[in-house]
Order: sequence, then structure tokens, then C-alpha cells
Amino acid sequence: MKIALLGGTGDIAEGLVLRWSKVGHEIFIGSRSDEKAKGIASDYIEKLKELGVEPKIQGMPNPDAAKEAEVIIISIPPEYAASTISQVGDNITDQIVVTPVVSMKREGKAFLYNPPSQGSSAFEIKEALPPTAKLVSAYHNLPAKELSEIDRDLDYDVVICGDDEDAKEVVKKLTEEMPNLRVLDAGPLEVSSMIEAMTPLIVNLNVRYKPQHFSVKFV
Amino acid sequence: MKIALLGGTGDIAEGLVLRWSKVGHEIFIGSRSDEKAKGIASDYIEKLKELGVEPKIQGMPNPDAAKEAEVIIISIPPEYAASTISQVGDNITDQIVVTPVVSMKREGKAFLYNPPSQGSSAFEIKEALPPTAKLVSAYHNLPAKELSEIDRDLDYDVVICGDDEDAKEVVKKLTEEMPNLRVLDAGPLEVSSMIEAMTPLIVNLNVRYKPQHFSVKFV
Repeated sequence: MKIALLGGTGDIAEGLVLRWSKVGHEIFIGSRSDEKAKGIASDYIEKLKELGVEPKIQGMPNPDAAKEAEVIIISIPPEYAASTISQVGDNITDQIVVTPVVSMKREGKAFLYNPPSQGSSAFEIKEALPPTAKLVSAYHNLPAKELSEIDRDLDYDVVICGDDEDAKEVVKKLTEEMPNLRVLDAGPLEVSSMIEAMTPLIVNLNVRYKPQHFSVKFV
Repeated sequence: MKIALLGGTGDIAEGLVLRWSKVGHEIFIGSRSDEKAKGIASDYIEKLKELGVEPKIQGMPNPDAAKEAEVIIISIPPEYAASTISQVGDNITDQIVVTPVVSMKREGKAFLYNPPSQGSSAFEIKEALPPTAKLVSAYHNLPAKELSEIDRDLDYDVVICGDDEDAKEVVKKLTEEMPNLRVLDAGPLEVSSMIEAMTPLIVNLNVRYKPQHFSVKFV
């Protein structure tokens, strides 16, 4: 598939790009500047060639990356996610859009879930998208380091939600191409706040149980 | 230890009473009526005798049960939890109090976290308790059926939080007496909303993946 990663650096973006390239998907790295996007893309290409993979990765400004793609991953910090989507504008029509965005704050030693006024980052992003876009909430709780080690099996669950069943099916398929991730569908998009809230909970656990990077499994 | 279960029926109370009785703890079942509490207690005693366990279980009104105990489990629906504690009044002084209380609502097909105005059920209960009580938030996500099968190993994580380190240590010890539960301490009490929010998420998964009763493991 043609997959765009808007803001394709940092956190889980690297692991997704490497793993999806490995199984043959075509990746469009989006960034605010064309130059930065091309730089990131060539870094990924180099890494993959070293691993013996001949990737199809291009860097371009966010709007162009979104336009090219069937699936768009919003790999952007919470404070910029909605505004980036607004800037991408008409280039998102009826694509599948995936939000792993979580907004949290730190109070003393604790990390706390800090959703926007819409109730969840997913709802905030939905508001910025055209109604024809198919939004799926996913990938909030993947440990970035383990994800980027592309030969490592990931024995985690990815809980997703969204209002478009077909879009969730596509995300499930893309996810389960990364061994051994299992997708669990928790229902409509309004469930996203509860999925997002697991991220600061896991961050608190990671702080207390260093050097563990927890993910989650429903058993 | 001397453990009170206020509102000692239903949901996770049965499993906790049976499993803690099995390892020798003394249980005080509290209820609004003395008669009801004694009835529940004799049911548990009968069940345990059939399993070859000679339990120490007594039924009594909630205030008496709280007074007798070192650890008090609030096994009460969210809408009655804080008011029950207020009724128990002076009989809670410096005991350890455990809240598994979660407030949720149903909207269409989805179950949603529905915290009280204090931000979490734990904060609501804290407000009703004297400041000397040591509140620990725990046991939100134990599957009741599996818990009540006392010879069954429970390969789940129990995420707890609270502001009193010693109280959390006691709860950890009591919990890990139930094989193979593992306690993970997520930090101060303000983290409770994120632990509580996992319950409606799991309920949504249970509805969609019947007959699975999910609990959670951090891996």
C-alpha cells in the first residue's frame, strides 16, 4: 500500500517505516520542509539497504505525502497534530488516517492524561479532518525502540478504535504484517480516550521499572 | 491479616474472600444490613468448607466490619461508594482502604469512562475518608469469574497507585498471595483515573470478543 507518515521522524515513525518497507509497502515521508523530509527519507533508505532491503521511500512536504497515500499516519506531537492536518487541507479526502496521538502532562513525578477539550486527541483530529476521511485510532502504546528493531518479534496487542469498519480492517492487516502484533478492536472512535490514557499509565510504569519499556497485552 | 469487604457480594468480592480465606486471612463481610452480611458470610463459609478450607469469615454491618479490619476493600458500586464510607464514619481511622471502584456509562454500543467531578473514583473516595486513612487504588481489572475459581492461576498484572508507600506494599503482598498475580505500582493516587479508564476499555473488548474475559498484562 501507499502509506504516508506525516512528521515521519522520531518515536514510532522509524519502526513503522522500516517494518512496512521490509514487506514491500511504498512510504511517503512528510515534513514541514521538503528538504527535511528528503533528508529523513534518505536516512531510512540507507538503514534499510544495510539490512538488505530495497525500499520505496520518498520525502516530500506533508500535503504532497498525504495526497499520494492511501493510509496516512499522523506521527506528530499532540500540540501540532490538528494544525498540521488543517495545513494539509484538500489533500486529505477519503484516505484512511491513523492517529497514535496522545496528549499528556507531567505533575510532580506523575505523567497524567491531558486530553484536549474535544475529549480525546482522536476527536480533536477528527474535527480538523474532512468528514469523508476515515479515522482510526491506533499505535499509542508501541514501544518505539523495540518497534525499530525490525527483526524483533513484538508480542504486544494494538488496541484500535474507529467508526469505519473497513478502515479498521485495513489497519488491522497492516499491523499484523509486523510479527507478532495482534490487533484488538475496542469499538467506535469515542473509545479512543481510554486507549490514549493507557500511554501515560505506561510511561509512569516505565519510569518506575527502568529499563523496562512496557507495552500491553490483553489476556 | 484482618480484611473487611464492604458490600461483600458480587463482582470481585467473592474471589478475594475465597482466595484470602484459603491462605488464612480473617475476613469481615460488611453490608448495609447485619442479616444480609451474615447470609453472605455463611454462603462463603459453606463454599470454602466444600473446598476443604476452614475459613475465618464473619458478617456484620459495614461500620463494624471496617472497625475490625486492618485493610478495607470498597466493594461497592460507584454510585454508593462515597456515601457508604461517609456512613461508616469514625470507624475508619488509619486503616488501609482499597478502591477498585470505576464509574462508567454506556453510550450506544460503547462503554465509556465516566469519572466523578473529582477526576477519578479514587479521588471521590479520598474526599469521603479521613486524611489519616491510607488509600490504595487497585483491583479494577480482575476478571471476577476467573478470580472466584480459587485453584486457577491468574496470569495478570494488577496495576495499583496511592500516596502511601507502606500501604501499597501491604496491598502488593496481599495481592501476590493469589498465584500468579503481579503488582505493578504506577505511582501516586492521581494516576488512578488512567487505571480506572482501562476497565470500560476491557468491557468493550469483552463485548466484542465474547466469551473472553480480558485482563491485562504489561510486557
